[in-house]
Amino acid sequence: MPDTHTLDSLLAANERFYRTFEALDYPAMARCWEQSERLFCVHPGWAPLRGRRPVLESWARIIENTETIHFDLSGAEATLSGDVGIVTVFEVISSKVGQERHSSGVVATNLFGWDEKAGLWKLFHHHASHCVVPEDSEAGPLLV
Amino acid sequence: MPDTHTLDSLLAANERFYRTFEALDYPAMARCWEQSERLFCVHPGWAPLRGRRPVLESWARIIENTETIHFDLSGAEATLSGDVGIVTVFEVISSKVGQERHSSGVVATNLFGWDEKAGLWKLFHHHASHCVVPEDSEAGPLLV
Repeated sequence: MPDTHTLDSLLAANERFYRTFEALDYPAMARCWEQSERLFCVHPGWAPLRGRRPVLESWARIIENTETIHFDLSGAEATLSGDVGIVTVFEVISSKVGQERHSSGVVATNLFGWDEKAGLWKLFHHHASHCVVPEDSEAGPLLV
Repeated sequence: MPDTHTLDSLLAANERFYRTFEALDYPAMARCWEQSERLFCVHPGWAPLRGRRPVLESWARIIENTETIHFDLSGAEATLSGDVGIVTVFEVISSKVGQERHSSGVVATNLFGWDEKAGLWKLFHHHASHCVVPEDSEAGPLLV
């Protein structure tokens, strides 16, 4: 089903990105990202990756090496500016990589481009970094 | 002198933001930021700040408590998407806060809005997080 050029649809696309990651479905993850060279991705604690191939290769590697991962999202805020959708969100990540279990708080800037022809929001920029997730951000998505 | 709606001008606005910070000039820093409530700012290692007042108050506090600060910028990449200018850049920050000297590597996502009336790029989103700055990024700005 196509997206719409609205805040609700943008937030749904953002949610879909995290649920796709949880499903550890690489082909679906590749489809979340825009077909362009402006792709930019900072995984928490990593150096930034630029360009479609480095970004998608990182996802292939992460998905291959992750046993389970779960995201508790909170405090999502979304704004539209022309064909760019800007989402900021807190993530509490619980994962199992090999035999190690991890849990960490992250803040992410996610930028989506509106693909008018396909009727889809496609991710082109993900900047995630560690932070303390505020307790009062758990009330759910806020739109501004 | 007004900016123009071009990549060069966007990169110059990005550079101006850092030089204003170096000058520890709070009124000029406040003028770098958009007059809107979509302001978002993650200082490295801080929790994110949302809204004009919390963001500007953080700058007032930082500028008040900083004796000297210097930015070595590298690997800047800029893209335009309608009225949004997207810049990613590496910062090597050298600062003196009280008697302590700090040096750290950071990657930043800076989003600027194009103010057609004023003919200016105004910052509305700054997400900075610690990272290892690659040595080969020192060759200077790259445009994509």
